Amino acid sequence: MGSTFDPLLTPADDSAAVTLTQDDLKRIAAYKAVEYVESGMVVGLGTGSTAKHAVSRISELLREGKLRDIIGIPTSTTTHVQAISLGIPLSDLDSHPVVDLSIDGADEVDPALNLVKGRGGSLLREKMVEGASKKFVVIVDESKLVKHIGGSGLAVPVEVVPFCCNFTRGKLEELFRGAGCKAKLRVKVGSGGGETAAVTDNGNYVVDLYLERDIGDLDAASEAILRLPGVVEHGMFLGMATTLIVAGKFGVTVKDRFG
Amino acid sequence: MGSTFDPLLTPADDSAAVTLTQDDLKRIAAYKAVEYVESGMVVGLGTGSTAKHAVSRISELLREGKLRDIIGIPTSTTTHVQAISLGIPLSDLDSHPVVDLSIDGADEVDPALNLVKGRGGSLLREKMVEGASKKFVVIVDESKLVKHIGGSGLAVPVEVVPFCCNFTRGKLEELFRGAGCKAKLRVKVGSGGGETAAVTDNGNYVVDLYLERDIGDLDAASEAILRLPGVVEHGMFLGMATTLIVAGKFGVTVKDRFG
Repeated sequence: MGSTFDPLLTPADDSAAVTLTQDDLKRIAAYKAVEYVESGMVVGLGTGSTAKHAVSRISELLREGKLRDIIGIPTSTTTHVQAISLGIPLSDLDSHPVVDLSIDGADEVDPALNLVKGRGGSLLREKMVEGASKKFVVIVDESKLVKHIGGSGLAVPVEVVPFCCNFTRGKLEELFRGAGCKAKLRVKVGSGGGETAAVTDNGNYVVDLYLERDIGDLDAASEAILRLPGVVEHGMFLGMATTLIVAGKFGVTVKDRFG
Repeated sequence: MGSTFDPLLTPADDSAAVTLTQDDLKRIAAYKAVEYVESGMVVGLGTGSTAKHAVSRISELLREGKLRDIIGIPTSTTTHVQAISLGIPLSDLDSHPVVDLSIDGADEVDPALNLVKGRGGSLLREKMVEGASKKFVVIVDESKLVKHIGGSGLAVPVEVVPFCCNFTRGKLEELFRGAGCKAKLRVKVGSGGGETAAVTDNGNYVVDLYLERDIGDLDAASEAILRLPGVVEHGMFLGMATTLIVAGKFGVTVKDRFG
């Protein structure tokens, strides 16, 4: 009797037989976000393990005829490939400079809805698309909530040009010395076991900033990072998210930035 | 008697038989700048028609034994090739994060020694090297002096990522609409006559900003440009030059920023 698993139903208490995995929580948040999508919209499609559930859900609703005339703007080549394979019509910012709504995950969210993104390596395109969006819905499981940026002990990524990237790495570390910053060039391990620099969709490298303490004024930190000539962009998304959807063991919370 | 042309001598009056070309003036400024170079220095080597005279002069002094132990940090692949061919030992910012002195030309210089650079397409590497320099000597002929940035009617270049560059171009134009800005993607004409986007040493494109009027507060303009996610760097070099050397028909002028 009604024992089919429905990801939009959360268990009423801990004794429920269904245990939600982190991926279930991600899917729940993603499905909730897709409720904001309306027929005729230009929709920014995020990148990562949470956003990919939203992309799947949009394609499902298109197939079922519950959504029509959606144009997707992918934020990475990975999402481009996924959306194409699911039959979502795609375009780009050159053709659609105004995006109605974007949906994307985040690596960290602070109480003011400032984000860290880009551990997946696609922060620049995400920032372009989401910065061009009238609404930006962020979807996370509750493990991503932090008191302050960098608070999870994981990295704040910075996309840098390959030219003299170690110089730029040093400058970044110096900038946040007061916050106990360690700056590391992101590497990937090749099939032979050797390490090479990880390369973004734009042919750049990533420096990950590991912070021991709060870096203080985020806007000032942002400007200081951007002022370094070797920096292309950073993964702090300040004042951009308009809605946050958090899926946790005890349900889904929706928070709007204004109101 | 002594009629050999010496580029460091300027004519005493207009009736002199020697007429100095713009290239003579560039060489005069460059030679004067190289007087600041001392043995043992790490020297940033600029890019462009004026800077190349400085690079030649440094190699000449090395060959003559008047300079020793110079390490050059080239600001472009073009300068790298020139310096290597002239036998100047080279390194980079990763190995030498502090540069003693840089010498480079500029497309425009305002009265506060703020510069526009990058019409030659190498602004990012130039800004990295010259920003890491204790002293930065700028060498120009007098045609480069302007009352305000953009005042020559020529472009202020902005290096942008290729991804959705037309979107970024539009955002830049919007930013300076008040100054009558036209933003154009820089193109090059191929051997077949077709136009393609000009590509920088870093694999990026260039958007040229043509301004009709003064853009006002330069620091604010700089931050606003850098805040656009698709922007890598711009060609305004604010507060970076420490010395300006101007060669004109009536002689050489040296101006220090402080004093």
